[in-house]
Amino acid sequence: MFRVTRRYHFASSHRLHSPELSEEENQKIYGKCNNPYGHGHDYVLDVSACGPLDSAAGRVLDTRLMDDLVERLVLHPFDHRNLNTEVQWFMPVVPTSENLGREICRRLKHNWNSTFPDEWPRLEKVRIEETPRNIFEVRADEIE
Amino acid sequence: MFRVTRRYHFASSHRLHSPELSEEENQKIYGKCNNPYGHGHDYVLDVSACGPLDSAAGRVLDTRLMDDLVERLVLHPFDHRNLNTEVQWFMPVVPTSENLGREICRRLKHNWNSTFPDEWPRLEKVRIEETPRNIFEVRADEIE
Amino acid sequence: MFRVTRRYHFASSHRLHSPELSEEENQKIYGKCNNPYGHGHDYVLDVSACGPLDSAAGRVLDTRLMDDLVERLVLHPFDHRNLNTEVQWFMPVVPTSENLGREICRRLKHNWNSTFPDEWPRLEKVRIEETPRNIFEVRADEIE
Amino acid sequence: MFRVTRRYHFASSHRLHSPELSEEENQKIYGKCNNPYGHGHDYVLDVSACGPLDSAAGRVLDTRLMDDLVERLVLHPFDHRNLNTEVQWFMPVVPTSENLGREICRRLKHNWNSTFPDEWPRLEKVRIEETPRNIFEVRADEIE
Amino acid sequence: MFRVTRRYHFASSHRLHSPELSEEENQKIYGKCNNPYGHGHDYVLDVSACGPLDSAAGRVLDTRLMDDLVERLVLHPFDHRNLNTEVQWFMPVVPTSENLGREICRRLKHNWNSTFPDEWPRLEKVRIEETPRNIFEVRADEIE
Amino acid sequence: MFRVTRRYHFASSHRLHSPELSEEENQKIYGKCNNPYGHGHDYVLDVSACGPLDSAAGRVLDTRLMDDLVERLVLHPFDHRNLNTEVQWFMPVVPTSENLGREICRRLKHNWNSTFPDEWPRLEKVRIEETPRNIFEVRADEIE
Repeated sequence: MFRVTRRYHFASSHRLHSPELSEEENQKIYGKCNNPYGHGHDYVLDVSACGPLDSAAGRVLDTRLMDDLVERLVLHPFDHRNLNTEVQWFMPVVPTSENLGREICRRLKHNWNSTFPDEWPRLEKVRIEETPRNIFEVRADEIE
Repeated sequence: MFRVTRRYHFASSHRLHSPELSEEENQKIYGKCNNPYGHGHDYVLDVSACGPLDSAAGRVLDTRLMDDLVERLVLHPFDHRNLNTEVQWFMPVVPTSENLGREICRRLKHNWNSTFPDEWPRLEKVRIEETPRNIFEVRADEIE
Repeated sequence: MFRVTRRYHFASSHRLHSPELSEEENQKIYGKCNNPYGHGHDYVLDVSACGPLDSAAGRVLDTRLMDDLVERLVLHPFDHRNLNTEVQWFMPVVPTSENLGREICRRLKHNWNSTFPDEWPRLEKVRIEETPRNIFEVRADEIE
Repeated sequence: MFRVTRRYHFASSHRLHSPELSEEENQKIYGKCNNPYGHGHDYVLDVSACGPLDSAAGRVLDTRLMDDLVERLVLHPFDHRNLNTEVQWFMPVVPTSENLGREICRRLKHNWNSTFPDEWPRLEKVRIEETPRNIFEVRADEIE
Repeated sequence: MFRVTRRYHFASSHRLHSPELSEEENQKIYGKCNNPYGHGHDYVLDVSACGPLDSAAGRVLDTRLMDDLVERLVLHPFDHRNLNTEVQWFMPVVPTSENLGREICRRLKHNWNSTFPDEWPRLEKVRIEETPRNIFEVRADEIE
Repeated sequence: MFRVTRRYHFASSHRLHSPELSEEENQKIYGKCNNPYGHGHDYVLDVSACGPLDSAAGRVLDTRLMDDLVERLVLHPFDHRNLNTEVQWFMPVVPTSENLGREICRRLKHNWNSTFPDEWPRLEKVRIEETPRNIFEVRADEIE
């Protein structure tokens, strides 16, 4: 059983503001991340899959297929976009990196079988670096 | 003569859109960087000064004084802000990294003497990494 | 269940010398790290916590609270200090990165509840890069 | 229980070409990695071991012993070599990073006891960065 | 006057062996880099151009045009190739990083005007990281 | 004319304290870097030389000769040492990174001809990263 990780990059802007909280609470909880006009990050996204080796090809998976999946479900809709106003899923949700990781992992998990229909490889986890000092991880089996 | 460089970080959002160009030209020139709702970056800013050593202290400058200057003129107004809508200087100007570097260098150069009134140290140059693959530099003596 | 990791930096000096070993053994085991006047490192410290998302705030924890805890228990007493002579806990203990990681993890674990009194978030692990080629990790549930 | 990781580097060339596949299949599966004259990488190798602390020395293991083992079994035979033609084990096997990680882990696991004969430390896992965007991991207990 | 730098990556294999030197001299001068079957690197290439800002677009150059030039002249012929046997220019020349940088700079300089026919922007320099510990730079005005 | 840069690492401890200044001035100028028991850093040292290519070998210099020079003059006396108490040159001098760079550059410049007696290659400059946020450079022709 091997783990294969591919690294991707995307640049987005966001504002941390929860519709379930008051203006004051939002300001207190998110600080400058709550600034009304938003700010941005160069996100680093690591997607990990695991599985046994295909003995003829010596690989866990065809990484080009995983690249296509991530391109279609994550990079195309998120890169160079404002997450709050251009990604419908985030409209009622605060675009924290936790929620961003959760949504990326959910999208990949729900569409994984269309690209990888066999028992293996399986999506294992998603990791996001918001900045080199803020890192978020979630395992696919923790996501509904 | 020594060069001292300090590295700073800030996260901002921006949209590349020139008021001097048509919608079509803007779209053609800036591509996805022209997306209407903006996107963001984790900018890496290197500020370099040069000068002889103070023989007692063994330093070119007191880096805390340079940190204060950069904090006041650059990090406070730019970090976690939307450059197009929250930084007045950029309202009529496209916030490319070239213009961002030019404006940062201009601000530091024009206020340098209030912090460093002697002949040395001198502001030498400003370098911005928009992403690790896009780097911009300008020398202080090229800036008005 | 999500994992959140924050990265911190501190610079300390130390000498690897065990009071339980002879001079010869110390020299043989630690080599140049046993040099009598010490040397130093820029340590990189990653602290990881885990827990479910707070549905209103979309976060695992308030990272500023974790920053305060790490500042008080680790950065303030260790940064720009000599570990052997200025950190009481290390006086009878060799300041290897294993012991450094163990002590950092112990401090954070024993004081965690004063900052995070609920079931979640929990301290999960501590990781130290002594240099980019020497990395040490310990899980909080392995520490007494 | 602690984890200690050491980072090593080696530069090799390889060609991805499976003897079990046709020319067409090789070209389709491996793309430009199947180019007949090969290409190369600066591999980054992380070897992790785990165990309790030796209370006198405050260490999991003597890292110089692990360095010697990795030097003898991996760096000496692989560094500045063509994996396909100079490393006998790869002659009938495609030198993908998965197979490279598997073989490195197998070599270290089978020779571990000659250097570390006690119950602890144990070899835990091997991680290879082919490039910063392609990462492969395998656990020692998954290897025969 | 601004400097713009773009970073590119390519993976190649090579063998350091000079046709002007004897076998013994080659072995003595290049050491393990002279191993007969070659080895490889993940080269990091920085290409710098300089010029004034286009006042409407706020840029020194259209980086996509520079990307196309580098793709056509450098990445396409060098990436995933064996420099000694697949790049005709290197057949009579040792593919050291100095010669690699010289040839990349020469190709870009001689074809620059077809893409950038005006006085500005100008190609300024080329920088190659063979590994993070070996770096080579050459200025365009030093190249014939 | 080419520039070749080699990167080296060393770990030292130091205390910033100038014998020409009072206790109060030292504390005010150097802050926590003046802590009496010292602290340490993992210094990154880049040494750059320049010259034309040797047409047979395709190189500016034999990097192993430069490595030997740096090992003997810098790494051996500084690595895993306390700069204030173990490096005689620093006893009357504050071991700031400016002075460290000056002394490294002076040592290399004064001994350069014993290794490289011809007109080329020449030592060009020395660059020190005290931390990734503090960088110091000095050119050899600025050093006596």
